[in-house]
Amino acid sequence: MAETRQNSRDFLPEPALRRLPWYLAYVNLLNMRAVDYVSSTQIAKALSIDASQIAKDLSFLNIKGKTRIGYEVASLKNELEYFLGFGEQHNAVMVGVGSLGAALIRDTGLSHYGLNIVAGFDISPDVVGTSINGVPIYDISELEAKRPKLNAEIGIVAVPIESAQETADYLVASGVKALWNFTPFRIRVAADIVIQNTSIYSHLAVMYNRLGLIAPQD
Amino acid sequence: MAETRQNSRDFLPEPALRRLPWYLAYVNLLNMRAVDYVSSTQIAKALSIDASQIAKDLSFLNIKGKTRIGYEVASLKNELEYFLGFGEQHNAVMVGVGSLGAALIRDTGLSHYGLNIVAGFDISPDVVGTSINGVPIYDISELEAKRPKLNAEIGIVAVPIESAQETADYLVASGVKALWNFTPFRIRVAADIVIQNTSIYSHLAVMYNRLGLIAPQD
Repeated sequence: MAETRQNSRDFLPEPALRRLPWYLAYVNLLNMRAVDYVSSTQIAKALSIDASQIAKDLSFLNIKGKTRIGYEVASLKNELEYFLGFGEQHNAVMVGVGSLGAALIRDTGLSHYGLNIVAGFDISPDVVGTSINGVPIYDISELEAKRPKLNAEIGIVAVPIESAQETADYLVASGVKALWNFTPFRIRVAADIVIQNTSIYSHLAVMYNRLGLIAPQD
Repeated sequence: MAETRQNSRDFLPEPALRRLPWYLAYVNLLNMRAVDYVSSTQIAKALSIDASQIAKDLSFLNIKGKTRIGYEVASLKNELEYFLGFGEQHNAVMVGVGSLGAALIRDTGLSHYGLNIVAGFDISPDVVGTSINGVPIYDISELEAKRPKLNAEIGIVAVPIESAQETADYLVASGVKALWNFTPFRIRVAADIVIQNTSIYSHLAVMYNRLGLIAPQD
């Protein structure tokens, strides 16, 4: 069973993978409201996504909807959480404990999505040796020695842009397999390293630009 | 001149708009290193993006590169900052001052990208009446009265999923023109409201999935 699931994970394309958390959020909402069943048509209506797209996305999961009734809400929730990896804990190290890095360490919400930040690394004597929400902050020079013991496969990059590439290279050299890049710098990595860019600032740019179009005089 | 610029903003497609912050980050780096000129070929190589794509994206800006020399770094930096709206301050209100909302208010880095969070709103007596980094936190019932005085066109949504849609509707009713949605819930809004979804959790899901593919036994 576990093996079938592992295999079925392999074939999910990234756009589908990015839609699944929307379904999970909606299904969580239904679960809170004690709704028992939901159809792909209902999800489609609630989220303004094509119903056939939803049915196709959900076909990657180990769950079958019943004709006329749809999917059992509790099972769909569990299956989505399992499939998205939110049910397990994934250790991560944070490099850069400035304003954003510290904020992300303080955001306990991430742990509900399976992210366990186990340590922070920085160069500043102001933060090295301190801890945030119980997460210890070490000097960056300790990364290579500490990373394997921390069992962290994910490195979060929240440093100034001029250190982004160097930090990424250093994390990879220390054995990290995935990078979560919060800097606006486009980091380059080898093909076997997973990278996700969370471009907070590019979202701001799109917002400002579109706002300018509705209210150009502002 | 200002009008030409305003007009040229209108035609930039979203994918191009999302690439510009990468160019800006790289150009900032060159500027710190006291580099005077940069060609689209150099940017292309550094960022692994097609050079003709970069030249096309930059053609939307009010700047011309010189043959063989390229763009003047300082001018390109200024033009990108202007174009992306990072040079002006845009007032925003934060709704939901839990773990993530409070973290975003504390992230002073956002102000460098033109975002000025002027107030937070929540329902919890634990936070209402307090302030974070000098940003006052009000009861959500005060939003409609306070929003126009705060001159905030942007509403940031960082509430639990079950309140996401309601919060969005309330922000729009109070006069907000753009929503920045940090919840995993897919909010629906009228066509004249700008919305950007920063799906932190879907990025996590992609990372976990891809990590599972390289090291399925972990």
